[in-house]
Parts: sequence; C-alpha cells; structure tokens
Amino acid sequence: MILTVTLNAALDVTYRVDRLVPHRTHRVDEVHAVAGGKGVNVARVLAAGGEEVVATGLTGGATGERIRADLATTAVREAMVEIAAESRRTVTVHAVEDGDATVFNEPGPQVTGPEWERFSATFGDLLTDARVVVLGGSVPPGLPAEAYGVLVRAARRHGARVVVDTSGPALLAAVRAGPDVVKPNADELADATGHGEPVRGAEALRAAGARAVLASSGPDGLVVVDEATCLRARPPERVPGNPTGAGDACVAAVADGLARDHTWAQILPRAVALAAAAVPMPRAGEVDFALAERLLPTVTLEVADAPGAHR
Amino acid sequence: MILTVTLNAALDVTYRVDRLVPHRTHRVDEVHAVAGGKGVNVARVLAAGGEEVVATGLTGGATGERIRADLATTAVREAMVEIAAESRRTVTVHAVEDGDATVFNEPGPQVTGPEWERFSATFGDLLTDARVVVLGGSVPPGLPAEAYGVLVRAARRHGARVVVDTSGPALLAAVRAGPDVVKPNADELADATGHGEPVRGAEALRAAGARAVLASSGPDGLVVVDEATCLRARPPERVPGNPTGAGDACVAAVADGLARDHTWAQILPRAVALAAAAVPMPRAGEVDFALAERLLPTVTLEVADAPGAHR
Repeated sequence: MILTVTLNAALDVTYRVDRLVPHRTHRVDEVHAVAGGKGVNVARVLAAGGEEVVATGLTGGATGERIRADLATTAVREAMVEIAAESRRTVTVHAVEDGDATVFNEPGPQVTGPEWERFSATFGDLLTDARVVVLGGSVPPGLPAEAYGVLVRAARRHGARVVVDTSGPALLAAVRAGPDVVKPNADELADATGHGEPVRGAEALRAAGARAVLASSGPDGLVVVDEATCLRARPPERVPGNPTGAGDACVAAVADGLARDHTWAQILPRAVALAAAAVPMPRAGEVDFALAERLLPTVTLEVADAPGAHR
Repeated sequence: MILTVTLNAALDVTYRVDRLVPHRTHRVDEVHAVAGGKGVNVARVLAAGGEEVVATGLTGGATGERIRADLATTAVREAMVEIAAESRRTVTVHAVEDGDATVFNEPGPQVTGPEWERFSATFGDLLTDARVVVLGGSVPPGLPAEAYGVLVRAARRHGARVVVDTSGPALLAAVRAGPDVVKPNADELADATGHGEPVRGAEALRAAGARAVLASSGPDGLVVVDEATCLRARPPERVPGNPTGAGDACVAAVADGLARDHTWAQILPRAVALAAAAVPMPRAGEVDFALAERLLPTVTLEVADAPGAHR
C-alpha cells in the first residue's frame, strides 16, 4: 500500500462570499469543511483512483475528530495518531464574483515529545506494508524541522520509496536524509536553493541528498532531474479553474508510479495530466479522472535544457 | 439580574496576519478564540462591571462547547441551551500593518422546532429573576425572524424591560412586539425604515411599536427618542482603535441603566462613555472602565434636532 503522512493535518474550511473587500464585514453564504493537509489530499486522490492507501499523521481535539470523521467517509484507511492540542483549520474565502480564492492557514497544534514518540512507533508499524511513503505539508509548531529527516530515514530503512512535498527548513531536512523524490514548486525551489532556474535548483537539491527532484511551475508543467534523467512534461492546454490541489494530484501520480516501478518517462506525463485534471475541481484532493485520461495522450515530453552538467 | 439572549452565539476567532492581500495565501501568526455574539458580549461587559448577569441562547457541537467553556472563565452565569447542529464561528482577520479588521460571519446552525420549544421553556424560567432582558444579534437559519417578537412579548408579560440589538426582519419583528428600547446603528436604522436621518428613522420605529429608539452613529454619538425625550449625546474626542464592540458596550450601559430605573439623561452619557471605552480594546466584550470614568464628565448632552413633531 501507499502510506501518506500529514503531521499538520487540517480541517479545510471554505467560505463562499460574493466579493472579498478588505476592512469590511462579510456574510458567508455557505460553509464547507473537509479533511485536508497535503498528505491527506494525496491519499484522497489515490483512493479515488482505486489505490490502497493509508493516511497517518497527527490530529487532535474536536477539529481532529472532524478530520477523522470526514476521512471515514472516503476509501482512505485512516490511521491518525491523537494528540492533546487542537488540530488547525485553514480558511479559504471563495469570492463568487471573480472565482478567486484567498487562503488563511492556521499555524497548527503544539506537539509534545511523548506524542512524537507515539507517532514514530505507529509510523514504524505502518511501514511494514508500505511500498511508497508520501510526506506532505508543514511541520506543526512543537516539532523540529528535522522531524522529516527522521521519517525519511525510517522509511528508507524499511525499503519504502519516499516522496516529500514540503518547503523551507522541513524540505532541506528531508533532502539531507536522501528521499527518492522531492516536489517543490518554483517558489519553494528558489526559496530553498537560491536558484530561480528549475534545473539548477533541482541540481542543488540533488547535491544536498535528494535522488530525484520534481519541480513544478504551474501551467508550464513539470521538470524532473535525477541521476539519469532530465525531462520536462507540459500540458497541451491551460485548464481554467482553481490550481489548489494540482500539486497534490501530481504527488499522487508520482507515488502511484513509484509503487508500480514505472520510469520517469511513464510517470511524468501522468503527473501533468492528473495535476491539470485537479484544476477544474472545487477542492484539493479531487480530480476529474476522465479529463486526466483525455489529457494524457496530449502531454508533451522532452529532454529539458540542462544548464549544468547534470549527468 | 440582567438576562442576555444570543440565539446565534458564536466562537469569535481572530487571525493575526501581517497584511491582508486578496487572492493570496496567508500564514496566520496567531489564532485567538473567544465566546461571542452580541448578547454574549453585552453579558461580558456587564459582568466585568460587577453586574449579576445570565447569558442564555443556543449553542451546539464542539464549537458550542468551546463557547460555553470560554464563558465559564468569566463572571457571566452561562445558561445556554444545547442544540444538535454546530454553532457558528466568526473569523476576524486582523492585519498588523494597518491595524484594520476584515470580518467573515458564518450563517449559523439550523435550529429545529423542538429545540426552539426547549429554549422558550428555559427562557421562561430565567425570566422569573430578570429585571432587564437583552436580545442581541442575528436569528439562526432554522428560526423565523418572528422569534424575536415571541421573546419580547414573553419578557414583557413577566414585567421585564427589554432591549433589542439586531437588524433587518428580526429588528422589525421585535419592534412590533413593543420592546422598551431598540438600538440600531445608522445603517441598520436606514435599512429598516428608509430614513437616513436618525430622528426620523427613530420616529418610524416608534410608530411601529418600539417605546424608545437609541440610534448610534459611531464616533458622532447617540440619539435617543422616546415619548418624552429627544436627546443627543456626543463623545468629546475620537478614541483611536477598533470600533468592534462599541455597540455591545453601549447596550450594556443601557441595560444597566434600565435595571437601576435611571432616566435617559443619566443613561445616555454613560452609554457614550462606555462605547468609546470599548474602542481601544482589541476584542468585543471588553471595556476600559477607567477610561469610561474619565470620559463620562466630558460627554456633551443636548436636545436633538427634531425634524418631526415627535412629542
């Protein structure tokens, strides 16, 4: 099975309003809440695609209960570890008039040392059956960024392949532990490496320990760099909609491909198609699979420009 | 004692961010949550001022539990009636750079017929000891606007004096039942009556059934119109800060004055001073009582311009 980890799981709340006007009071027409956080969203995409997937991570309080209850309505097997502090919410204000979204991310609960030890034990147990592990999202306040390094090393010891989607110090900590794939977007890659050009940024993360770097730049598609490959895949058309969730769909395609021992030339077009097929959906963790199938044959794949001597 | 009613009680959540930029993702630095809704805020001001006050209303779910738990940390006696649906939240985004606030109000829980009957019974019991009843805020989705009319009539039958702070159809329903005081702000008054001029608007609500109308226009102070009085009170200075909560402090002063059988000439300056002393406080339901005492002697009181023949 594929195991996803969401240390900072969230209840993703959407507020529908007519328009967002700063400094005004808004009547919210509709409130929608769903389990979220990057690992949870990836798990939902995988489960909807028929994969066997387990979602672990940390949840607490009444908000944690709502996250678990929502996951229980999906095909994802939920194995969250309970903590004392309340899980965070994210609030997305969706303005109907312009279709655009403004997002507020709460920082997340304080995690204690004993809670982290209990999580590590559960994670170790779950690794027994995991072919691929996905670590997604931020690290909550109580934990060091190095937490991701610990999890990457544990997964590799168990022979699982590891995909990491995070940013900042947590990304760098994960990279140093030698994950199979990291998936920064253009901003996260530039932030972590100082390189605005994706192939150079990817080389820097490879030099720091990542085996493969998958760099996304929204509608321009994906670049992957590993020891043997430097490929770029582009979507044929720009799909209108909300890009929230495209990255999670991309990671789901990568995890699925790794679980099947596919090559990057097989994985990359599917990752582009699945990411594009998330864009028309209102919420992260949802994909229009029929659209993904239609887009897949039209994705272009090429050897990327390699400004450095990367092979 | 003074009894406050908050049918649509809320958990008031404040998100501190650097700046609010529409269509962007914001990292929230700090999350603060406190029991809210107009009646709850009025109760907190009264209790902080040493009054005996009971807060009733409707709360449900985990959010309702947090509202009750927060009230339990104050001197307010909490007598909320439990409903099945989850209480609402309000989210105030406080941008540190400009000090301004953007507010999102969730619509509130669906209330069932049996829940409304249970609330009515509790309200009837609480009326036995109530000298003054404050009805504050919106009516949640499951209830007719006429709910406020029912509560005003029940309170009057018990000999309690009734202050209503709401807007729209709920305000009009309350007015028709003959409350002692309604306190619309300038926008709410214009919206309910079509009169932009406060004394004319107040006369319209008096003609519809309200005994006294207290119209607030923010830093310009208050106008009260009843059968014998047409007075205006103004604050001497504009207090910098956040006007959220000034209306609740004003209502608290009115409820307190009615409980003591004070005249409008006594109540009005105190209402202006208390409202102004809420402005420097970060949250509704909090008042700088020392500032209110300092401001009180400087409030100006005058006979208001009476464009109609109101006496």
